[in-house]
Amino acid sequence: MLVVMKQGADDRQIDQVCRIIREMGLAPHPIPGKMRTAIGITGNTGPVDPSALAGLPGVLEVIRVTKPFKLTSREMKPEDTIIRVGEAAIGGPEIIVIAGPCSVEALEPTVAAARELRRRGAHLLRGGAFKPRTSPYAFQGLGREGLKFLAEARAASGLPIVSEIMSTDDMSLVEEYVDVVQIGARNMQNAPLLKRAGKIGKPVLLKRGMSATLEEFLLAAEYVMSEGNRQVILCERGIRTFSDHSRFTLDLAIVPELKRLSHLPVIVDPSHAAGRRDLVIPLARAAIASGADGVMVEVHPDPSRALSDAAQALTFEMFDELMDELRLMAPAVRRPIAAVGGSAAKAAR
Amino acid sequence: MLVVMKQGADDRQIDQVCRIIREMGLAPHPIPGKMRTAIGITGNTGPVDPSALAGLPGVLEVIRVTKPFKLTSREMKPEDTIIRVGEAAIGGPEIIVIAGPCSVEALEPTVAAARELRRRGAHLLRGGAFKPRTSPYAFQGLGREGLKFLAEARAASGLPIVSEIMSTDDMSLVEEYVDVVQIGARNMQNAPLLKRAGKIGKPVLLKRGMSATLEEFLLAAEYVMSEGNRQVILCERGIRTFSDHSRFTLDLAIVPELKRLSHLPVIVDPSHAAGRRDLVIPLARAAIASGADGVMVEVHPDPSRALSDAAQALTFEMFDELMDELRLMAPAVRRPIAAVGGSAAKAAR
Amino acid sequence: MLVVMKQGADDRQIDQVCRIIREMGLAPHPIPGKMRTAIGITGNTGPVDPSALAGLPGVLEVIRVTKPFKLTSREMKPEDTIIRVGEAAIGGPEIIVIAGPCSVEALEPTVAAARELRRRGAHLLRGGAFKPRTSPYAFQGLGREGLKFLAEARAASGLPIVSEIMSTDDMSLVEEYVDVVQIGARNMQNAPLLKRAGKIGKPVLLKRGMSATLEEFLLAAEYVMSEGNRQVILCERGIRTFSDHSRFTLDLAIVPELKRLSHLPVIVDPSHAAGRRDLVIPLARAAIASGADGVMVEVHPDPSRALSDAAQALTFEMFDELMDELRLMAPAVRRPIAAVGGSAAKAAR
Amino acid sequence: MLVVMKQGADDRQIDQVCRIIREMGLAPHPIPGKMRTAIGITGNTGPVDPSALAGLPGVLEVIRVTKPFKLTSREMKPEDTIIRVGEAAIGGPEIIVIAGPCSVEALEPTVAAARELRRRGAHLLRGGAFKPRTSPYAFQGLGREGLKFLAEARAASGLPIVSEIMSTDDMSLVEEYVDVVQIGARNMQNAPLLKRAGKIGKPVLLKRGMSATLEEFLLAAEYVMSEGNRQVILCERGIRTFSDHSRFTLDLAIVPELKRLSHLPVIVDPSHAAGRRDLVIPLARAAIASGADGVMVEVHPDPSRALSDAAQALTFEMFDELMDELRLMAPAVRRPIAAVGGSAAKAAR
Repeated sequence: MLVVMKQGADDRQIDQVCRIIREMGLAPHPIPGKMRTAIGITGNTGPVDPSALAGLPGVLEVIRVTKPFKLTSREMKPEDTIIRVGEAAIGGPEIIVIAGPCSVEALEPTVAAARELRRRGAHLLRGGAFKPRTSPYAFQGLGREGLKFLAEARAASGLPIVSEIMSTDDMSLVEEYVDVVQIGARNMQNAPLLKRAGKIGKPVLLKRGMSATLEEFLLAAEYVMSEGNRQVILCERGIRTFSDHSRFTLDLAIVPELKRLSHLPVIVDPSHAAGRRDLVIPLARAAIASGADGVMVEVHPDPSRALSDAAQALTFEMFDELMDELRLMAPAVRRPIAAVGGSAAKAAR
Repeated sequence: MLVVMKQGADDRQIDQVCRIIREMGLAPHPIPGKMRTAIGITGNTGPVDPSALAGLPGVLEVIRVTKPFKLTSREMKPEDTIIRVGEAAIGGPEIIVIAGPCSVEALEPTVAAARELRRRGAHLLRGGAFKPRTSPYAFQGLGREGLKFLAEARAASGLPIVSEIMSTDDMSLVEEYVDVVQIGARNMQNAPLLKRAGKIGKPVLLKRGMSATLEEFLLAAEYVMSEGNRQVILCERGIRTFSDHSRFTLDLAIVPELKRLSHLPVIVDPSHAAGRRDLVIPLARAAIASGADGVMVEVHPDPSRALSDAAQALTFEMFDELMDELRLMAPAVRRPIAAVGGSAAKAAR
Repeated sequence: MLVVMKQGADDRQIDQVCRIIREMGLAPHPIPGKMRTAIGITGNTGPVDPSALAGLPGVLEVIRVTKPFKLTSREMKPEDTIIRVGEAAIGGPEIIVIAGPCSVEALEPTVAAARELRRRGAHLLRGGAFKPRTSPYAFQGLGREGLKFLAEARAASGLPIVSEIMSTDDMSLVEEYVDVVQIGARNMQNAPLLKRAGKIGKPVLLKRGMSATLEEFLLAAEYVMSEGNRQVILCERGIRTFSDHSRFTLDLAIVPELKRLSHLPVIVDPSHAAGRRDLVIPLARAAIASGADGVMVEVHPDPSRALSDAAQALTFEMFDELMDELRLMAPAVRRPIAAVGGSAAKAAR
Repeated sequence: MLVVMKQGADDRQIDQVCRIIREMGLAPHPIPGKMRTAIGITGNTGPVDPSALAGLPGVLEVIRVTKPFKLTSREMKPEDTIIRVGEAAIGGPEIIVIAGPCSVEALEPTVAAARELRRRGAHLLRGGAFKPRTSPYAFQGLGREGLKFLAEARAASGLPIVSEIMSTDDMSLVEEYVDVVQIGARNMQNAPLLKRAGKIGKPVLLKRGMSATLEEFLLAAEYVMSEGNRQVILCERGIRTFSDHSRFTLDLAIVPELKRLSHLPVIVDPSHAAGRRDLVIPLARAAIASGADGVMVEVHPDPSRALSDAAQALTFEMFDELMDELRLMAPAVRRPIAAVGGSAAKAAR
């Protein structure tokens, strides 16, 4: 923490700031400059909020220096965290592809889609049973029934399952059926949900909030980890900006920056960022090129009949194209694509 | 809904789009233009997602026309909704001031603050018992104990109480103790929480999410209202932008626009938007000038010792200044300031 | 300037940073902390770019402390700058209203509008002769002819004239005809234009760029002032954000913040921010309430026939309503509305 | 253009809108719906601004349908525009790398850098002689002298030269010395500069403004093209958002979208977006993966002594690493890297 004094601040004001810093149990270090004085603060700033100093006479600005994340930090744990789900190892050398419909709509198509996706090279199946929708009048998901359909799809295909949780009330239900519990962008700062997810024995896929900074994103992961669950997968899915040619603006600079600051795996969801299927493949390629450990995409057997996010779902044919593109991309980032079902599938085509 | 075809789209493509629109149970209305054809869609677009059309051959763009909010809409209910809490009528002609500490920290100061604020003209007391914090290591609020302190403060001061709920699990507890249940910006799209709040018998103060559009904000209110609770107060509190001289960018154009599109009361929280106490009073004045029904501000007896958001809390002296400013502002918007305690208080000073 | 070292940075790395700081002619001040070391830098950071330090081994971050603006700064000149144009004193105690059509379209209506606006209480006439348009196919303004029409309007009405300059080539022409030279949002970082405006003897009205920070805005003013012209009026006109209910998001927190940091007058253009006439009056009220020295609005005798920005232009009747509202607002901010033409006009109505 | 009427709009209001549309010389097409009426407009909307309709009684919204760009549009010219500069063909199958120092600082190092970059595989040399700086007190470039140094560097290395123009006054000078004239982000909406660049016989590299939409970006290119110069290279360089881990947010979705809507070449500048050298290589990889025709990066022999943007400049060693990464990336996008000097250079290493 650094307190910057105004140009005209006098000694009395500087002394007052130093005194209050000491009263907070911290140590002030004045640095007199040509134009103005700055005061460094050292000590444990946890219990008291030193931004209180911002309002004192003579103070221009208070600048925070120490990063507040701990368990998510690579300074704390230098080696990469690798999360194993079924045959996949997320955050390891291999690139992972998570695919599936936005919403689970019925048993048959879900099972069929899982088989198709496995055959075509996907490593995990995603599907929404509880859907966060902007409007209360939009399709809200099948709930428990949707989870059962996903479990049947897993049994039939062998693909582990990723599905979103929206309420602490549903956590035990979701935990029972799924392999990876997803917390969506709208809930990235839902502290009770994050804490509850911190107590389960399954990996958590945490999506970046649409207006979250990198620091807020890591602190949300910190909420999960501080309750004991160390298996968190970070997922960039686009941020809200003025730019209107895609639904959200995919912020790929966060990928290398998260990998630098944190040991957690980082994947990218190009489907929600794009909002339009023709942008999904180029953005998926770019995500892998930026250093992501994998991608999560929406695939629907017949997008024109999907109950949600139809415009961004890939067809199976487009999913094949995506897998072909990622197989081309893998050597460029010196990583293989995980062969869970994939290599056999490729041979079979 | 309007489908815009590409310039070179041929009749076969136009026919296909029209056919699929009819298969969705909707009616297509082609409008041939000099450069390209557009196709208007009429009918109930609820059950199917017509954005599916965006991916069809020859389609350039799909534009939505009908606004999706209903119960919140002034088209539905032309007269203003007025919400009565204690002696205050929020959304009526009088301007309302909600004030109090960011977090409830102990019994004595909370009771003392409530008495002071009542005496100085506040109409409701705000105070956080459950605190949404970015970091899991920051002070998270006193929980149930904090609610009890607030209830004692109400008993001592006569001020009704506003406090935030973060989890559906705590709803019955919060409902028992508080007069207005607040849903914070981070939970504006927490659908289970919104739905649960739709089933209580107390007003809900809903804050705009930091990256929510006006439409998403009204749809969040629609979640509450569609469950039966028609008492929703909308609160602008600043949005996230690149602009870095205040913590968030207060978006006051939303105030007249919400008043035009919706019948619900609209208040403004300048404290969180500013993030710094010296900006609170000018922004509070501007909020009232833009047409807001009231403001909600943070006040702390000794900001330099506050456990959260210290930099933005007003002292009691600054709160007096705020009230004086708002009393000056009221005739400029042809509205009185509600005199709940205020006039007596003013006389007493 | 403050260099923050990584947690694991060793003494050798800290020494290297200190050595390079000294080689830059600056003085390093290491502040060892519990978790990491920070190094304060003092001295004149002008000639060399110390952000070069950001890439050195062991460095986590480089934080700038000193504000880079000088001539615009209130630290440099504590008293308000008041700019006199005709009978108006911009930045003084009185509130100023600048009004007129977006584009000058013909002589007669421009002269008629100037007379009407003077009679109804405006203090300066605005009108575009050179129009910055997004599309090359949109109406680009009448150029020199438009300036002549404005000069005739001034002669007929007595109102001083504000008009935009887009090119250094046109500066002598504009300087000849107008009283205040406007530099638009799109040119806020057009350094040659800013420098050229710094050499004229007339006030410059500088609009904030649509994605400019406060610091960039003041540095643009600094470009003008550093060439010798001390008469700069700052104008907030809305920033670009995701928020889509108004054309730009009016960022009123910048008004008190600019007044705190700078001695220059600050006005607000609610017309361009709103993009829709029904939002102009509430935003103009809010601007004055936030502490602005005046407002600039678009008025057109028949908006449905305007050649540009029709949707945001007020009619004369709406301008009367605006003036009435601002006359109500003035006592709320303890300021009068300047009576240039206004009081007589009011009496005449 | 589509006019959407309010739900309660009556026939008289609908008739008035239709009448005014006809008076504008356009044709109204009412589409009655279950909830409200929409009115399609056909005809040439150029001369009059139909947004004027937005303020009429009963009108909810006016939605524009036709895209306003023409010459830049792929609808107009389906085949890719390929721009030949020296041995490079920008927009063709080969990937192009433009590299060089932010500012030209002296003759020797510029010539040396050009030779080094050629040897290491760059196709064009970039270097700033006129520097757009936020502060008037920062180094503003060497001007004409800088251009001469660049010309000597070209003579010595064979690399064509890209350099920025900031003022129409300098255009003939810049045109004389450089091979590609750059218009920077701050000048993307500087209409006189764009028009002037439309009259030269050399290609223009146009950078996206930091808050420009895709449409505004193409319309800026349209300004250049409508004056006769069809050789425009579009360059994404990051947009301004709240996201604070990189200097700007690189918006790679614009790359495939520009390629779809326009025939012009699209390159990406990862250096300015990143603002930090360690992010440049991952973002350059991602840019190529998203479909860009090339990248432009800053390279400096000794970044710690650079006079501008030091923190983002690559060293020569990092530039080699970049070229190696791009050579790995090229097959992944089924494109070669242009071998202008590159293959020989590679063999020589």
